[in-house]
Amino acid sequence: MTTISSLELRSKITSEGRLELWLEKVTVPKPAADEVVVRIDAAPLNPSDIILLLGPAEPASIQAGGTPTHPTASANIPLQHMPGLKARLDKALPVGNEGAGIVVDAGSDVQALVGRTVAARSQLGMYAQYRVVKASDCLVLPDGVSPREGASAFINPLTALGMVETMHRDGHSALVHAAAASNLGQMLNRVCLKDRIPLVNIVRSQAQTEILKQQGAKYVLDSTSPTFPRELVEAIAETGATLAFDAIGGGTMAGTIVTAMEEALSAKGKSYSRYGSPIHKQVYIYGVLNPGPRILEGNLGTAWGVGGWLMTWFYEKIDSATAQRLRDRVTNELTTTFASHYSSEISLADVLSPEIIVAFSRRATGEKFLICPSGTRS
Amino acid sequence: MTTISSLELRSKITSEGRLELWLEKVTVPKPAADEVVVRIDAAPLNPSDIILLLGPAEPASIQAGGTPTHPTASANIPLQHMPGLKARLDKALPVGNEGAGIVVDAGSDVQALVGRTVAARSQLGMYAQYRVVKASDCLVLPDGVSPREGASAFINPLTALGMVETMHRDGHSALVHAAAASNLGQMLNRVCLKDRIPLVNIVRSQAQTEILKQQGAKYVLDSTSPTFPRELVEAIAETGATLAFDAIGGGTMAGTIVTAMEEALSAKGKSYSRYGSPIHKQVYIYGVLNPGPRILEGNLGTAWGVGGWLMTWFYEKIDSATAQRLRDRVTNELTTTFASHYSSEISLADVLSPEIIVAFSRRATGEKFLICPSGTRS
Repeated sequence: MTTISSLELRSKITSEGRLELWLEKVTVPKPAADEVVVRIDAAPLNPSDIILLLGPAEPASIQAGGTPTHPTASANIPLQHMPGLKARLDKALPVGNEGAGIVVDAGSDVQALVGRTVAARSQLGMYAQYRVVKASDCLVLPDGVSPREGASAFINPLTALGMVETMHRDGHSALVHAAAASNLGQMLNRVCLKDRIPLVNIVRSQAQTEILKQQGAKYVLDSTSPTFPRELVEAIAETGATLAFDAIGGGTMAGTIVTAMEEALSAKGKSYSRYGSPIHKQVYIYGVLNPGPRILEGNLGTAWGVGGWLMTWFYEKIDSATAQRLRDRVTNELTTTFASHYSSEISLADVLSPEIIVAFSRRATGEKFLICPSGTRS
Repeated sequence: MTTISSLELRSKITSEGRLELWLEKVTVPKPAADEVVVRIDAAPLNPSDIILLLGPAEPASIQAGGTPTHPTASANIPLQHMPGLKARLDKALPVGNEGAGIVVDAGSDVQALVGRTVAARSQLGMYAQYRVVKASDCLVLPDGVSPREGASAFINPLTALGMVETMHRDGHSALVHAAAASNLGQMLNRVCLKDRIPLVNIVRSQAQTEILKQQGAKYVLDSTSPTFPRELVEAIAETGATLAFDAIGGGTMAGTIVTAMEEALSAKGKSYSRYGSPIHKQVYIYGVLNPGPRILEGNLGTAWGVGGWLMTWFYEKIDSATAQRLRDRVTNELTTTFASHYSSEISLADVLSPEIIVAFSRRATGEKFLICPSGTRS
């Protein structure tokens, strides 16, 4: 095969406080014996990708630059965010956690993969036209499954299954999820319905309530309702949920969930203890929809925990047989339980367009963008 | 033995929002075969006792009542605290987690304990002249150790050892402690010096810094100093501490510690990761010096946890051989590593005195009150 060149997205924040985005032209290296070259046809814009891509830049402040054939984009970073960015300053970072496409070349050991459709993850960034990855890091998609259908095969499905697996491992029997109307939230709802796990969905509007109700969710609570605190205690008492996953992060939600769990458990207790319920109540924060301080108010009791949770580290911690079982489930249910929906398809150059950046930064419910780096609509 | 009558302290918060304290006269039951009757000569006023005793009543608002022979005390509870008190309303609660005294009567199986000096814990409250307890719940004090010396043999020593044991079990190798000048903090400092465990002490004044420095502490940081955040990162980087115990609870201290740990670890990292350091950073909150909201600000990374920690539950979780090993260490080092110091001795009736309530509620560093319920100064 002749040399392939590839355009790849780069994000840099300079010491001077500028965000710079551009497409870097690189030569695709030859695959090693155990590697494949994937032409990336579809890669989703997940919330964690958007955070890396833009940093704390205000989306509306981003301006186009460069030329039509070499587009760029840039913005000023608000000064107060600079101390937190020290570790990434002046580094040209690749972007894109996952994607899917066609194997166009392969090393000597894995020739059989040529022509197959695969999903893949790479630290080197999947917002690229081509990417060399280890064959063992690919999920070979079943016949008939397109790159578009496989583009989100890793992050959201393995996150939803990781949450359920965490629940089982830590001895809980029901879940609370906020904010639950996201693509991931809808996926978690499907997993819990299928596995008969009670799930308390917390959403932030009546419209989101309808979305989940239509998908068969039993408990959907609108956190903007004045009766929300009471409904949350009741739903937790009914389901017995003592574990929650929270994508909001900042603000009062994590504390509100712990206090509701403590109230539900204390009401069941026989006698008064100054220490509250001895049953451990846990909220894992896995997102930063609200980047502000996390405020834990009210009576949490003494048996509680709030902490970070990251899918990647969860899978590094568990044994490989369990991880394989969960990955196999994703492959088998990729077009049903784990189906993702996209509202827009964009090109790699579109990611540098100020209007499109504003659109995907909104992260509105029901809106999810798919990048098609190779230009091949899938 | 003839019937013994005993005065016992009671604390009640009524549905009408009144705190009521009084001494209840009860007849001491005969001990069962495996029980002993302890004449309680000394019982400390620990912070957790004060919280149960007074609830959220403002100490200065407490008024004396009753008669000289039957004193009482009472106060109004600020209305905003009433919802959090539901579980204890209208219950006459006994008070006093621990104490020590002389065994004056014993069941048939444990006659040998009569006359021995023991320390004990009881859910029934140790602020009483006599208490029947299971012999197995007593710590028989070595010859020559007085009730005063044994009064605080449970809560603080087992808390300090529980913290160190938690550190070993969870794979940490150094500790951060706030606020570290307390009786418990000084004890933890002695344990860590003896066991050669690096300990970062956080205190809240220059005077407290001096106390710990004089006791050989290497790292003592004054949180009121403008250079505190920087010093904390440096002390954590030097010691490698990834576990902290925090008695303050409310406010920003727990978050400040996590962000300092994250900054110290990130500075050691080789390459930038959007997820921060993969090493887990934990803060356990075990006190409520500040009863306000817990506010977690800044960059915590994604591998972090903040949660409640309670000595009692820790000892229920660990195996009995380990628990016994720790209890034995307390007995052996009761007058050295685990020595407590008291600034005042008071009678049971004194606990109802408004002036004395204001004095022990201050919980000033170096001030600790000892109740002598039997009237026998030890």
